[in-house]
Amino acid sequence: MRTTRRSKAKTRHFKITVAYDGTRYGGWQLQPNADTIQKAIEHALAKLAGRAVRLHGSGRTDAGVHARAQIANCSFETRLALRVLLLALNANLPEDIRVTRVEEADAKFHARFSAKGKEYRYQIDCGIVADPFLRAYVWHHPRPLDIAAMRRAARVLVGRHDFSALSANPMRTIETPVRKISKLTLTKRGNLLTVCVAADGFLYKMVRSIVGALVKVGEGRLTVAQLRELMHVRKRTATIETAPAHGLALWRVYY
Amino acid sequence: MRTTRRSKAKTRHFKITVAYDGTRYGGWQLQPNADTIQKAIEHALAKLAGRAVRLHGSGRTDAGVHARAQIANCSFETRLALRVLLLALNANLPEDIRVTRVEEADAKFHARFSAKGKEYRYQIDCGIVADPFLRAYVWHHPRPLDIAAMRRAARVLVGRHDFSALSANPMRTIETPVRKISKLTLTKRGNLLTVCVAADGFLYKMVRSIVGALVKVGEGRLTVAQLRELMHVRKRTATIETAPAHGLALWRVYY
Repeated sequence: MRTTRRSKAKTRHFKITVAYDGTRYGGWQLQPNADTIQKAIEHALAKLAGRAVRLHGSGRTDAGVHARAQIANCSFETRLALRVLLLALNANLPEDIRVTRVEEADAKFHARFSAKGKEYRYQIDCGIVADPFLRAYVWHHPRPLDIAAMRRAARVLVGRHDFSALSANPMRTIETPVRKISKLTLTKRGNLLTVCVAADGFLYKMVRSIVGALVKVGEGRLTVAQLRELMHVRKRTATIETAPAHGLALWRVYY
Repeated sequence: MRTTRRSKAKTRHFKITVAYDGTRYGGWQLQPNADTIQKAIEHALAKLAGRAVRLHGSGRTDAGVHARAQIANCSFETRLALRVLLLALNANLPEDIRVTRVEEADAKFHARFSAKGKEYRYQIDCGIVADPFLRAYVWHHPRPLDIAAMRRAARVLVGRHDFSALSANPMRTIETPVRKISKLTLTKRGNLLTVCVAADGFLYKMVRSIVGALVKVGEGRLTVAQLRELMHVRKRTATIETAPAHGLALWRVYY
């Protein structure tokens, strides 16, 4: 009676790293009428664990937003080696979602609550003609941009500020709108302009609002002084446009 | 009577450069039951010219193969500036096909017959886990490859040779199977292995057969001596496997 003698597999805790092309998805978080990244991974986890497994992400990403290294944690009973788990998870996932790493984690580790900060990258294709190979991952913006002005605007945003003007609060949260941006850089390589932003946390639509504001400055439709004033008023107005989702990728989560 | 006084626009000759993501297409060339790149561009040209315009490509690319810079030529009557033609063509093309350049060409220029050579690139993702952002443009090959052996095999192929063993002749052509490879390099950057091959011309499925052979050498399933022997026999055999189409891109055409 081999099976009865065998002891039950121990509950183990995992930190998993996920890369995904968000094009086809309604975002990270579970929701009733859309395919989501969390749903797809929980489905793959359930196949491995033989029961429903709850996955906790470091935070949501919106519909159409990508991730290079989203972090999530989960716990379940298994005897499988980490490398086997990695391959088995990917075998049960669609091609546009890949688990790139599975690590053993402390029971106290929580992808969201343990996070110290995050880095996002936003890519803009400045070419007259869009690059067809990058079209799903960049915002095509063929009109000229004054990158020096955009960099001056970026300096206004670096540091600890109330980012109410550069976020979209759906008015259900009571969290503080103060965040600390530690890095906000613009790098141009060929036609590709990459906005890299790291902070201790991000409000809803904060990165896309920042990019929308910087691009407006780059187009000469908003001055650096006006941006400073908007930040001071601490209220979202129609002046700020949200950059399209498909140019954005969650790049890294700091612990 | 402004219109009657206006003289008829002169016939002009154009060289156009095209980048395309071949994923959705049955290849370059017109065919009855598939969307093709040529069909899409001829459709866009007809809208501009007000009549059917025949487009001549530098050569066909197979179903699923991409291009960074395919070259084609065509002639029609128009007064539009080159820049306007560029923008108007792209406005009438799907997002996965982009005309990147429109130039005035000599009446004698022919994209196919004037070509002196071509360069193709084949990309292989060697990571254990596939990169989801590159999945449409690379062949995911997670088993280890001996790149030094692949480079030794590549040296056997450089120069002027009969490439019957490394092509698939559908037995309708009477052209010579001799081609001269001027460059065949393998470059590894991170997990990405790029095979770059330039020649005065290519036989049907020649690049994908070369890559199939090199990968078989890299896996240790074919020796360099065996490859040399296959070339000597000058006959396609089941030993040679054709690498998948979606890793291949036409990179450049030389004139």
